[in-house]
Amino acid sequence: MNKLEQLYEGKAKKVFATEDPNLVIVDYKDDATAGDGAKKGTIRGKGVVNNKLSNNLMKMLAEQGVPTHFVEELSDRETLVKKVQIVPLEVIVRNVAAGSFSKRYGVAEGTVFKAPTLEFSYKNDDLHDPLINHYHALALELATQEEIDTISAYAFKVNEILSKYLLQFNIRLIDFKLEFGRLADGTIVLADEISPDTCRFWDATTGAHLDKDLFRRDLGGEEEAYQEVMKRLLG
Amino acid sequence: MNKLEQLYEGKAKKVFATEDPNLVIVDYKDDATAGDGAKKGTIRGKGVVNNKLSNNLMKMLAEQGVPTHFVEELSDRETLVKKVQIVPLEVIVRNVAAGSFSKRYGVAEGTVFKAPTLEFSYKNDDLHDPLINHYHALALELATQEEIDTISAYAFKVNEILSKYLLQFNIRLIDFKLEFGRLADGTIVLADEISPDTCRFWDATTGAHLDKDLFRRDLGGEEEAYQEVMKRLLG
Ligand SMILES: Nc1ncnc2c1ncn2[C@@H]1O[C@H](COP(=O)(O)OP(=O)(O)O)[C@@H](O)[C@H]1O
Ligand SMILES: Nc1ncnc2c1ncn2[C@@H]1O[C@H](COP(=O)(O)OP(=O)(O)O)[C@@H](O)[C@H]1O
Ligand SMILES: [Mg+2]
Ligand SMILES: [Mg+2]
Repeated sequence: MNKLEQLYEGKAKKVFATEDPNLVIVDYKDDATAGDGAKKGTIRGKGVVNNKLSNNLMKMLAEQGVPTHFVEELSDRETLVKKVQIVPLEVIVRNVAAGSFSKRYGVAEGTVFKAPTLEFSYKNDDLHDPLINHYHALALELATQEEIDTISAYAFKVNEILSKYLLQFNIRLIDFKLEFGRLADGTIVLADEISPDTCRFWDATTGAHLDKDLFRRDLGGEEEAYQEVMKRLLG
Repeated sequence: MNKLEQLYEGKAKKVFATEDPNLVIVDYKDDATAGDGAKKGTIRGKGVVNNKLSNNLMKMLAEQGVPTHFVEELSDRETLVKKVQIVPLEVIVRNVAAGSFSKRYGVAEGTVFKAPTLEFSYKNDDLHDPLINHYHALALELATQEEIDTISAYAFKVNEILSKYLLQFNIRLIDFKLEFGRLADGTIVLADEISPDTCRFWDATTGAHLDKDLFRRDLGGEEEAYQEVMKRLLG
């Protein structure tokens, strides 16, 4: 499968066409952004870590019944995936209050919820990815009711599987963001990535951040943390 | 029923205790605020209009199966209502894009939705009443799942009844905010007020604002508009 023209360059990845119109190649960069693009930088080695981790986790999820875009890892930074039309919703599951949730609702970071929460943001950079509920998503025709139901069920399932899996590596899954897409026939699959860029991982013993918050909050040690997560999960 | 000590002074109303611990007296002021308290002013006669309109609409809703706090109008500005513990959610129903919705999601004001939308804001002045979804409301224990279901059903029912009712007076109901409360036995009832302060009313022919947007947006004519709505509905 050859890399043809670049279709899109995002903040963390490039997407390339292939000879097969139903497949694209994702190429992971080391670029990091935070604060709605206000902070830009590099986390050395991030692209390799995120590519390998995301592929590993997606494979595991697929085995447990969550369909994903993953097809084949092509290199350290490149993966062949099914081309999807991305549903313009960032799908966020939270087990513990942190980040924007804590700020928005005045709840101390670390507060454990009785049950996981689900929320959608409208994936729209110009509007700064505003929080949106399912009535609004329907009104804006971002997805159908059936798609929202499917996505919601998958999101909670991913949370259950991932939380349990990560705990084996002494990592607590605090919250995470997923993106889903539609295949040519309309089937909903998990797309984009699952990585320390898109999840909050806390060391289950020390509570240490093992994710992009180190970069977002200028705490330092992000390169080492990304490597640490890869080492724990992939040996 | 005598007015005893003042329990609360809000932005638009005062609440007084009575001899009956299950009843309070609401006293409507002419004070108006907008922009999260940034703009403060007076709309002469507003308290009288809102008191009479709200009571009229609540009576009508109660007859059609939506329980409310309304007991008895005591004077032009004062009404006896059942005392409730307010559920800290502002319950907003929209038929047409306007105001914060239009701004947040980049949708032109006046865009008609295929189906009405429902949203909750966390009623918390310090946090500036942030948008909240039902998973978050549960996590923060603002209401139970059963209460959220009841409130949602009532909100849509109020929309149906009110939209139809107002159209008789050549008024389009664009959107509105409700508050619900718990009686001593836990029963959910519609509380607070339904008025040009809490609804967007557009003249069905001209599209003219007949509500607080005239004040919020410095368009002028708000006193006349409030009187006009009262004249249309109450003769
Ligand atoms: N399987 C896929 N098919 C098509 N597009 C995808 C797929 N998976 C992810 N994408 C999209 O590719 C882009 C990935 O690049 P990224 O750097 O994460 O972008 P962004 O800056 O928009 O977050 C995103 O827009 C993402 O939605
Ligand atoms: N039936 C009721 N029992 C107790 N409190 C009520 C009832 N109806 C409304 N309230 C509350 O009384 C206050 C009314 O005053 P208002 O000026 O609207 O306040 P605010 O500035 O909080 O909007 C609000 O806090 C409202 O939630
Ligand atoms: Mg991205
Ligand atoms: Mg009020």
